[in-house]
Amino acid sequence: MRNSFKQLAGKYKLLKQGWSPQQNLFYGFLTYIFVGFVLLSLPFMQKESASFLDHLFISTSAVSTTGLVTISIFDTYNFFGQFIIMTLIQLGGIGYLSFTTFMLLSTTRKMTFWHKKILSTEFTLPKTIKINDFLKSVILFTLIMETLGAILFFIAFKMDGMPTTEALWSSVFHSVSTFCTAGFSLYNDSFMGYIDNGFINAIISMLAICGSLGFIVITDFGMVIRNKAHKISFTTKIILYGFVTLLTIGTAFFYFAEPTIAQLEDSRFLAAFFQAMTAMTTVGFNTVDFGLFSQAMILICVFLMYVGASPSGTAGGIKITTLTAVFSIMKSRLRGNKQITFLGRVIPYERLYIATSAFIFYTLLIFIGTFLITITHVSELKDILFEVASALGTVGISRGITGDLTVFGKWVIIILMFIGRLGVLTFGLAIWSKTITEEEREVLKEDIAV
Amino acid sequence: MRNSFKQLAGKYKLLKQGWSPQQNLFYGFLTYIFVGFVLLSLPFMQKESASFLDHLFISTSAVSTTGLVTISIFDTYNFFGQFIIMTLIQLGGIGYLSFTTFMLLSTTRKMTFWHKKILSTEFTLPKTIKINDFLKSVILFTLIMETLGAILFFIAFKMDGMPTTEALWSSVFHSVSTFCTAGFSLYNDSFMGYIDNGFINAIISMLAICGSLGFIVITDFGMVIRNKAHKISFTTKIILYGFVTLLTIGTAFFYFAEPTIAQLEDSRFLAAFFQAMTAMTTVGFNTVDFGLFSQAMILICVFLMYVGASPSGTAGGIKITTLTAVFSIMKSRLRGNKQITFLGRVIPYERLYIATSAFIFYTLLIFIGTFLITITHVSELKDILFEVASALGTVGISRGITGDLTVFGKWVIIILMFIGRLGVLTFGLAIWSKTITEEEREVLKEDIAV
Ligand SMILES: [K+]
Ligand SMILES: [K+]
Repeated sequence: MRNSFKQLAGKYKLLKQGWSPQQNLFYGFLTYIFVGFVLLSLPFMQKESASFLDHLFISTSAVSTTGLVTISIFDTYNFFGQFIIMTLIQLGGIGYLSFTTFMLLSTTRKMTFWHKKILSTEFTLPKTIKINDFLKSVILFTLIMETLGAILFFIAFKMDGMPTTEALWSSVFHSVSTFCTAGFSLYNDSFMGYIDNGFINAIISMLAICGSLGFIVITDFGMVIRNKAHKISFTTKIILYGFVTLLTIGTAFFYFAEPTIAQLEDSRFLAAFFQAMTAMTTVGFNTVDFGLFSQAMILICVFLMYVGASPSGTAGGIKITTLTAVFSIMKSRLRGNKQITFLGRVIPYERLYIATSAFIFYTLLIFIGTFLITITHVSELKDILFEVASALGTVGISRGITGDLTVFGKWVIIILMFIGRLGVLTFGLAIWSKTITEEEREVLKEDIAV
Repeated sequence: MRNSFKQLAGKYKLLKQGWSPQQNLFYGFLTYIFVGFVLLSLPFMQKESASFLDHLFISTSAVSTTGLVTISIFDTYNFFGQFIIMTLIQLGGIGYLSFTTFMLLSTTRKMTFWHKKILSTEFTLPKTIKINDFLKSVILFTLIMETLGAILFFIAFKMDGMPTTEALWSSVFHSVSTFCTAGFSLYNDSFMGYIDNGFINAIISMLAICGSLGFIVITDFGMVIRNKAHKISFTTKIILYGFVTLLTIGTAFFYFAEPTIAQLEDSRFLAAFFQAMTAMTTVGFNTVDFGLFSQAMILICVFLMYVGASPSGTAGGIKITTLTAVFSIMKSRLRGNKQITFLGRVIPYERLYIATSAFIFYTLLIFIGTFLITITHVSELKDILFEVASALGTVGISRGITGDLTVFGKWVIIILMFIGRLGVLTFGLAIWSKTITEEEREVLKEDIAV
């Protein structure tokens, strides 16, 4: 195990000669997408043919773990094609995570060197977590959760009367798809057929929440279990606090304010919870047709997708930590305080700078994306806004316009999904940042050789 | 003249015993609106009756210089009612300006005391401008511009064959309404009847641009004319630079991308320029029906209304200076620079803090406003978003839904217009800020007694 980590680290070291961590991520994901696109375009992966653009769309959607589809996965791809998609999801999920981990750590260490002040707070990656522990957690936890998920899915599908072969494949595929919050489904109506199946609702929620909360939270909890003296980090507290609050508010809105869900009687609460959970964890499955929702509810969904869940998880959005920083700025500004605090802690300037940048970038991207699609595509503004927020947040729910998008519109969504998975700031830095100097590269090299 | 200034200053001093400048502004505007509402509700001001809520709506719209109307001004109010509306516009415009001036100066001076660093840059109010000069400019310039505007309007209306009595009143009313960027019109179709009248288009554009650029710019230019050694301030440069850029972009979009305007042949350029100008200066007249515009164009309008023009002018929006700061943050973030610069100058931290707060507040308010209206009112999202951006930006253009709003919807727009005129940060500070201490009040008193 330790050996493969070293190989991975070596590979990463090789890759980034002359590249910044952000550029590494950028080209890494681009390679995944391109390889996926080529494989999916091969005729023996398909049940029926589709355009090259559609294959590219599906490949990007899988690697970015978004789940938006212009064509039906089940009708277009045979078992091999579906297996490729699952692999892309897994690479996008875990590959993203290991990349993120490397980058996060190298960045943090770079910061140690350059700005010792930042590391003095626990606002980013907690000091107490080491790179080896972190990577071990990532891989171990993914394996455990996906195996457990597949077993539970298999039991649930069998209980529902599904044939064994179909249930076997379906349970593995959906377990990976859920834990990586990809939301790809083999069913053309997502999980609408299982709206009142509490067991399946529970499996999806558990997997998606664990996947979206991310490994900072998980590692932190793992350390508490192993070592009683270890205290839960400030980051983890903020993430949990924000997640529970938003999920509660979201569920309440769906329960009380959405007529489509209000008429459901028995499964009303389950449906309300599931729809809020799906938007927030960005898993993107649905048990109710989002095309039926009222305009007010669409805006609530856009907000939930806009925020997403935790940094270092598989979810998109501006992240709860950014939202927290933004709220703290507002509060401090209104109170006339000079220092910006949250839960009694001072948030450092650099952290606020990153948060506000992310907020501004994200907002502008949603606006520009929506604008670009309205130019060539005729749909109502609410549907386009929903689609754009879903793509940039890598959520994958839709009001049913994905398949009808123009060629230009599909390209816009492809680029948004890519940016969404990379993270708006990482994307920006990969494209526009100055090339790093020799000196900086030396520092980076030292960082990796832990 | 000097005497009336002293009276004004004395009145202000009296008012703010125990109040922060923001609270003064808040209650000042509320008083204007309430008095206006009572007067407009009197039957002898009216040609035909309207609900109390509609009178409140009109009073708020006039004081906030927005120009959104739920009822026809011409059909509802007689000459006396129309005169009240004009007075409210003037008070809202000039009253707002003198208040703003006082507040701006006292705040800046408070900053001198507390943060000497901030004043060392010219990013807010230029050091070289003194309170007396500034106030003199405000009143003198308003008088000159509105008289000039009225004379020109009179000539234009007479040339168009309007009877003298009607032309007399119409020219005075529209001159005040334009210079204060209120956009109230005595014609139910705004200026659509004058779409190809170059003279009237020019008068409106000149008055609205002068009004919206604001008195920092005007005073600055006045000083350059009087004293050749005086250099144009950095603030003025930024405002002019941003204004010209945005107006050009806006005009180009209307000219090339809007089918309704493309079919106009002769008056195509004039119409494109006028519509961009009306959204940006927030005057809010129109010569083309905004209800006919394409979805992409609506988003362009929303963006222009979102930005608005200059601080200390009569325009709403986040202001060009805020947009500039936001862009500088993005650029510096992407380039990996530590210091945030614009046109080669370092922008101080406090200025960035204010700009990002304004951006975040404004964005959230547009989102919340749109959400609240969708709850009770059935219109397309694009129309509601347009209405909300128009109200918060105190622009006053509409896609025709104002009159059909529910009671709740009207209240939302009333509050948005109020916040829009007060400024989002001032509003927030007036509501939530701590009451000022004895010590701070002493400092403030000294500030006013220049
Ligand atoms: K997803
Ligand atoms: K206006």
